[in-house]
Amino acid sequence: MSALRFDGTTIRLEDIPIPHPAPGEALVRVALAGVCSTDIEITKGYMGFTGTLGHEFVGIVVECDSRRDIEGRRVVGEINAGCGLCKWCARGLGRHCPNRTVLGILGRDGAFAEYLTLPAANLHLVPDNVPDRSAVFVEPLAAALEILEQLPVKRGCEALLIGAGRLGQLIARALDREGCVIDVLSRSEEKINRMEGLPRRAWIGRPPPPASYSLVVEASGSPEGWTAAVNAVEPRGYIVLKSTFTDGFVFNPAPLVINEVTLIGSRCGPFPRALDVLSAGLNPQSLIDAEYPLSEGVIALEEACRPGVIKVLIYLDSDRAPSVHPISS
Amino acid sequence: MSALRFDGTTIRLEDIPIPHPAPGEALVRVALAGVCSTDIEITKGYMGFTGTLGHEFVGIVVECDSRRDIEGRRVVGEINAGCGLCKWCARGLGRHCPNRTVLGILGRDGAFAEYLTLPAANLHLVPDNVPDRSAVFVEPLAAALEILEQLPVKRGCEALLIGAGRLGQLIARALDREGCVIDVLSRSEEKINRMEGLPRRAWIGRPPPPASYSLVVEASGSPEGWTAAVNAVEPRGYIVLKSTFTDGFVFNPAPLVINEVTLIGSRCGPFPRALDVLSAGLNPQSLIDAEYPLSEGVIALEEACRPGVIKVLIYLDSDRAPSVHPISS
Repeated sequence: MSALRFDGTTIRLEDIPIPHPAPGEALVRVALAGVCSTDIEITKGYMGFTGTLGHEFVGIVVECDSRRDIEGRRVVGEINAGCGLCKWCARGLGRHCPNRTVLGILGRDGAFAEYLTLPAANLHLVPDNVPDRSAVFVEPLAAALEILEQLPVKRGCEALLIGAGRLGQLIARALDREGCVIDVLSRSEEKINRMEGLPRRAWIGRPPPPASYSLVVEASGSPEGWTAAVNAVEPRGYIVLKSTFTDGFVFNPAPLVINEVTLIGSRCGPFPRALDVLSAGLNPQSLIDAEYPLSEGVIALEEACRPGVIKVLIYLDSDRAPSVHPISS
Repeated sequence: MSALRFDGTTIRLEDIPIPHPAPGEALVRVALAGVCSTDIEITKGYMGFTGTLGHEFVGIVVECDSRRDIEGRRVVGEINAGCGLCKWCARGLGRHCPNRTVLGILGRDGAFAEYLTLPAANLHLVPDNVPDRSAVFVEPLAAALEILEQLPVKRGCEALLIGAGRLGQLIARALDREGCVIDVLSRSEEKINRMEGLPRRAWIGRPPPPASYSLVVEASGSPEGWTAAVNAVEPRGYIVLKSTFTDGFVFNPAPLVINEVTLIGSRCGPFPRALDVLSAGLNPQSLIDAEYPLSEGVIALEEACRPGVIKVLIYLDSDRAPSVHPISS
């Protein structure tokens, strides 16, 4: 089968054997996959990963010995595969299992391929009314919805979102659905416009006044975003960190202490809730800028790096004509 | 009256007028005051404060127009005086009032003087069974107890305390009383010994294994302490930040995101709870290294800077003989 692989230096399409599912695992034929910022970071050396890239996907179960009922069904999949034996797995937090593999990120080949394997327990059936082009957003949408699992966000809560990129776009939509009033700080007016009028107020390259939000969501992954978050949060307020940071930077935690701020690191999220939200009508498809066949996967990753681009998809069905033409063509 | 004052460069004893309490304020005759690390930081330029130093005290109310019933009574006092009008004051969080003054720290003369003034609402009566030498610890003990207000700490919870200084000593005692099992990381075996056998395990200058505590309390205020906290906390765990940091340092927040850590900035705490704990038997007096009369206040501050010294007190009653002789004499 074809797979888009990274060897530590180069990304290229390779022909590799179809994987064999381990006991308890399913073999999934990938239909559509999404390019995430993490994929791009990996090709710069993040996590030291080598193998097949990609972790956002929707596909069809081809084979699953432990759950025959899902064979032939359309699924999305949680990306962390725990050992199933440790205290983290016992608590349902396999994403923190010290021996976990992570699809396309850590020790497990990913979704930019014709087939992938995952534990059957990681798979979730996609409701019929959620098309592939929406279902492929489940993983990042779940990450966005995790904010609502970690914090009691009340209707009318005024939140500042920092960053209007791939994840920021979904966070804005998730918080808006919960009745939050969202202001957005971003360097890019173009990206804020992609939020389709959701923000009450846009701070374009200019931070808001200090101590003005009870909830700040940092989704820029930049030192400037961090600094803006610490400045913008009210005393006793919350900062949710949704983005990782490539490099360290100089920082003094004293304002967090003086203002008694709570900072919450937030990574993955609840797939069932994300599927419910999509099934209930959230449509993220306007975020798609381009779709490429797997054979043009290298170009797809380049495209995803271009300024202003939110979402690039890779489709695996070779019969399929892209509904969204690459914006570079 | 005599007052130990800082003019931005020099600390010296000065003779200044006895202050007049504003409406709603009380005039308090100071009996005993404690030297805190913040006092020392202020003399290095922290907060840009000039005036009478000191904010930990116990004293007698001399005059209080708005609460005649507390005149002649022994009190301790919360150090933040809010405007009483803003949303923070309305929520009982005057310590975050943007127009607040802070005793001996911000815009208000402090406790290293014969008399001080504070709003009557800031004062708490000291139970008869709590001697001055214990009551003078109320402010930092309340700060230690704040951890228990912010987090549901369960009996048997295993916590790592980083730092065994002035605040760390009280935090160890506060957490121990709640049934926490405490391990301590400190560079100083001498200071860990001052904890009187409380720690289950001492990490002396050598950090514990990564991801090994669900609760880490950072009370060292050092970049090394911060790094140790981020490394030692389990996924989904909590770091409570109790110390401010003088300078910034290089840091990458990515582990907080990946491990979904919650970080809680924690400053002041509940005086009534601290008085209850002292009245119920907690005795912090073994932490006192030396007591000086106000006339020797400059020496008292120097003494408080010496390695290994935990608590130095300044007494205002000139008839009083120190029960603890300065360790430098």
